[in-house]
Amino acid sequence: MSKAKERIKKLRKLMKEKNIDVCYIPTSDYHDSEYISDYFKCREYVSGFTGSAGTLIVGLKESGLFTDGRYYIQAEKELEGSGIKLFKAGEPDCISEFDYMELLTPDNGCIAFDGRLVNAEFVRELIEELGIKNLKIKYNTDLVGKIWKDRPKQVFNEIFYLEEKYSGESVNSKLKRLRKAIAYEGAQAHILSSLDDIAWLFNIRSSDIESNPVAQAFAVIFSGSAYLFIGTDKISKRAKDELKKAGVEIRKYDEIYSFVRNEIEKDEIVYLDASRVNYRLLRSLRSKEFVDAPNPTSLFKAIKNETEIKNLKKAHIKDGVAVTKFMYWLKNEAKLGKIREADAAAYIDDLRSKLDNYYGPSFETISAYKENAAMMHYNAERGNNAVLKKEGMLLVDSGGQYLEGTTDITRTFALGKVNAKMKKHYTLVLKGMLALANAKFLYGCSGLNLDILARGPLWEIGEDYKCGTGHGVGYFLSVHEGPNNFRYKNLKGKDATVLEEGMVTTDEPGSYIEGEFGIRIENELLCMEDRIKGSDRFMKFEVLTMAPIDLDLVDEKYLDERSKLELNKYNALVYKNISPYLDEKEKKWLKSATKAI
Amino acid sequence: MSKAKERIKKLRKLMKEKNIDVCYIPTSDYHDSEYISDYFKCREYVSGFTGSAGTLIVGLKESGLFTDGRYYIQAEKELEGSGIKLFKAGEPDCISEFDYMELLTPDNGCIAFDGRLVNAEFVRELIEELGIKNLKIKYNTDLVGKIWKDRPKQVFNEIFYLEEKYSGESVNSKLKRLRKAIAYEGAQAHILSSLDDIAWLFNIRSSDIESNPVAQAFAVIFSGSAYLFIGTDKISKRAKDELKKAGVEIRKYDEIYSFVRNEIEKDEIVYLDASRVNYRLLRSLRSKEFVDAPNPTSLFKAIKNETEIKNLKKAHIKDGVAVTKFMYWLKNEAKLGKIREADAAAYIDDLRSKLDNYYGPSFETISAYKENAAMMHYNAERGNNAVLKKEGMLLVDSGGQYLEGTTDITRTFALGKVNAKMKKHYTLVLKGMLALANAKFLYGCSGLNLDILARGPLWEIGEDYKCGTGHGVGYFLSVHEGPNNFRYKNLKGKDATVLEEGMVTTDEPGSYIEGEFGIRIENELLCMEDRIKGSDRFMKFEVLTMAPIDLDLVDEKYLDERSKLELNKYNALVYKNISPYLDEKEKKWLKSATKAI
Repeated sequence: MSKAKERIKKLRKLMKEKNIDVCYIPTSDYHDSEYISDYFKCREYVSGFTGSAGTLIVGLKESGLFTDGRYYIQAEKELEGSGIKLFKAGEPDCISEFDYMELLTPDNGCIAFDGRLVNAEFVRELIEELGIKNLKIKYNTDLVGKIWKDRPKQVFNEIFYLEEKYSGESVNSKLKRLRKAIAYEGAQAHILSSLDDIAWLFNIRSSDIESNPVAQAFAVIFSGSAYLFIGTDKISKRAKDELKKAGVEIRKYDEIYSFVRNEIEKDEIVYLDASRVNYRLLRSLRSKEFVDAPNPTSLFKAIKNETEIKNLKKAHIKDGVAVTKFMYWLKNEAKLGKIREADAAAYIDDLRSKLDNYYGPSFETISAYKENAAMMHYNAERGNNAVLKKEGMLLVDSGGQYLEGTTDITRTFALGKVNAKMKKHYTLVLKGMLALANAKFLYGCSGLNLDILARGPLWEIGEDYKCGTGHGVGYFLSVHEGPNNFRYKNLKGKDATVLEEGMVTTDEPGSYIEGEFGIRIENELLCMEDRIKGSDRFMKFEVLTMAPIDLDLVDEKYLDERSKLELNKYNALVYKNISPYLDEKEKKWLKSATKAI
Repeated sequence: MSKAKERIKKLRKLMKEKNIDVCYIPTSDYHDSEYISDYFKCREYVSGFTGSAGTLIVGLKESGLFTDGRYYIQAEKELEGSGIKLFKAGEPDCISEFDYMELLTPDNGCIAFDGRLVNAEFVRELIEELGIKNLKIKYNTDLVGKIWKDRPKQVFNEIFYLEEKYSGESVNSKLKRLRKAIAYEGAQAHILSSLDDIAWLFNIRSSDIESNPVAQAFAVIFSGSAYLFIGTDKISKRAKDELKKAGVEIRKYDEIYSFVRNEIEKDEIVYLDASRVNYRLLRSLRSKEFVDAPNPTSLFKAIKNETEIKNLKKAHIKDGVAVTKFMYWLKNEAKLGKIREADAAAYIDDLRSKLDNYYGPSFETISAYKENAAMMHYNAERGNNAVLKKEGMLLVDSGGQYLEGTTDITRTFALGKVNAKMKKHYTLVLKGMLALANAKFLYGCSGLNLDILARGPLWEIGEDYKCGTGHGVGYFLSVHEGPNNFRYKNLKGKDATVLEEGMVTTDEPGSYIEGEFGIRIENELLCMEDRIKGSDRFMKFEVLTMAPIDLDLVDEKYLDERSKLELNKYNALVYKNISPYLDEKEKKWLKSATKAI
């Protein structure tokens, strides 16, 4: 029997004992994190699907896994033989998770989940949307935990302070801004459980989650005091001192539930984001009145300050040097025919590891050759780790964590002969990427308005990529950080985020043809003011990412004059910024690799 | 004393007598109509501002008029000497109507309005948003009515039936679809007060409102019965018969308020659109439970059926013949130097009036010369009715009501010498218009996603037009009909309408330079399926409007290859469709006016 089958069998036995009809297993931790530590990989443990996003729904007779377009192909492979149905979320005919649970749950039935792994918004919707009579909900049980024998521990690593020369703002100043926003909404207390918000607010970093320099923590902020709940005693003296200076009291991680129950008064209005705070935490509160709104810190941290921007530009140049050296190696020195995808990943990781103030990759490097790259988030180790030959395309998506910020860059390289279709798709992806990067737009626009610039050239030939065009990027924090993004569909009923000066968003259109190839070209864009004209404020982007666009994949006939100019301008800028850090042979090669077309 | 000053003085006297601090005077009728009959022109009567949109707020010491970007320049002129402040709604620094009322109203103060002229949504927001203690609201009084001595009567004209060869669907079939939608939401009764919804649902037309072939009416629909409240006995036999056949009972217009009070039971759930139904009507209900959602008929009628589409194409060809003949006259025969803006308007109106099944203009023709055209909705009669000379540009925005549908077209013409700036702006407007018309996009997109295609070329040079790019168009109904549109900003918290096959939307970017010129080029676009590829459904537009683009205003250097192809393709299509209806000299001219560039 496959591992997944066995584990689901065990789970069903437990479910039957407890009269549970459906067990809902999301990909999450107690902090609504996108990337989670090993302790929380319940969905992966049960289903065997290793993608970074997905939900497993186990019923008594059948079960289904929901994942998005980045993982359709990978999930299909990994679920083979598990008996788990794959649901392609985002496809127009795909049933919703709620509808699927409704199908599996009879009237008077029971749905169970760990209430710390879902947010309050989810539970509200679950109750509202499911047409089940007398639905029972069990949220105080961790079913997977009971069948997971060799489960790793929840790890809490040392916490250190991010100096102001990197963060650009003191904890005191950040708390002041936050308290003002909370008071403006008439609230007396604020609960923060999202790890990037907490790390940003308190200028602390750690390594609890792979590739995300955050500490697992909760925080409660009142007008005159602030509490930080952490799971470790290993906190640097500097961090301790700075937090003390800002009036922040440190408490134990597990105390959060009793703290909010006992220390927040029944009549206090609590500001929290019900779509981020976990359900059990919310249920621990005695308060009756809430301000349910996005965490003010989410917008604060999305708008990078001058210090951060200055640092980010440095980070992107050093990061670009690594990527350029990698490209040089790939095009000139790599022993094609003898090395594999994982070797290429290791090579670029190694180049980054030598850089100053480097704290590790900002996510696991994707090195995907030929048709493997059609899986947007392919992993060579878990894939077939293909041998790289002197032909076809290699997609490498990677990034670094530096004290000067977080980077995220994708380049697709020709390793040798490529066919006309590959060049056509690459060139159209490139055209879209450039069009978005060079957009001028009136202040007030969101990613919704701009997405078509990147997607348009592909839509014209009847192609699409099944993911957003871009996501916000944190500062020495999560590589995926909202609220800014580029996409064409908004969440129902939610307002799209206006692109503000100082926001950093990736611009990464792609083309993914199953069984053939995958292409993605990704630059990070800094939003800034272009000009004021009368009462109009026009905005534009500055490209942060600095690494050559592979001209071996460009078919000029798919570029118009404007795209050509944009391409030449970008490659020339790369040469200017990167060449000072290269040796002579690399520099000579870069000169020709970035020549105007 | 100016008329406006005098009338505001009278109003204030009344306000003081009744302890009213603010009188709120919107542009509306009892049906939340955009265009209103003379009886309802209270805002215009008091302020003197004649634009089609605006709100007058009269306080005891000061008063203000709010209007949108189409009318900034016109309002400034018309309000001169009135003492009324102009508020440019839509500008980033413009105060909101609510905030202005808050400024003018003390605690314990009173705001008054005619409850039939505002919708329930407005009153809810008014109460929620104004930070005034013990705010009193008086909604049962028509203050302007009391000072308006020579007020015209509310006119109810004859009602006739729109044959199915034009409407494409029987009343029975429409009622069936509507009842299904109402029942789906769990409601037992549906109140409809918007005139375009009512006209569409019952296949009736009339002429109560200028340019809008609607009848002033209300309707209440139950699962087994339907009531139509009309203000006239003059209803054609055919309409009477057809309504009877569909089980629709006719009642008197004024009975609606008592009907909903007495005939809708307290425990019945009522489906209504609180942003369309007037406040007094809502207050007349005893029901406690509502489904507040857009009228299902709004989406139904936005999606044109096959018969309507077939007819629309005919309507646009005959309408295009009129516009082409007008252009021929303007370019060849008009006595420039001796005729005025209004003469040009009369000429095109006259051309249309000779067409089959013509029921009048779909709005008052705009004929605006040179700098007058910078006022988006300039009216020659009320403006300076400038003499047209052999130079500069003339903007003509016009449309017709036909049994085969409603048209709306703008063309800007060179009358002689034009400068480089005019050509540049014209060509960039044209480029944007063509880019939107030729878009290919994935099903699921709304106008929010596409707007930048039309606006982009202007944004790049730091210009913008202060209005949406396009609006939905009714079928032999209102020339402005949602829910579809092209714009880049959405209403807060509202989801944008997905562009569906069969929707008709105008594509009308422009450039308005105060004191210099105004340019607008407007075509109507029919949304349709392009192709299905895998699970992707791609959409495109078919251009309905058929009249030449004036090549005398095109500066080729601002067009790329693609725009040139799009322009040539369109002008060739115009020649093909329009030339059969022209005489020989017109045809010869059209051949050269539509030549490829």
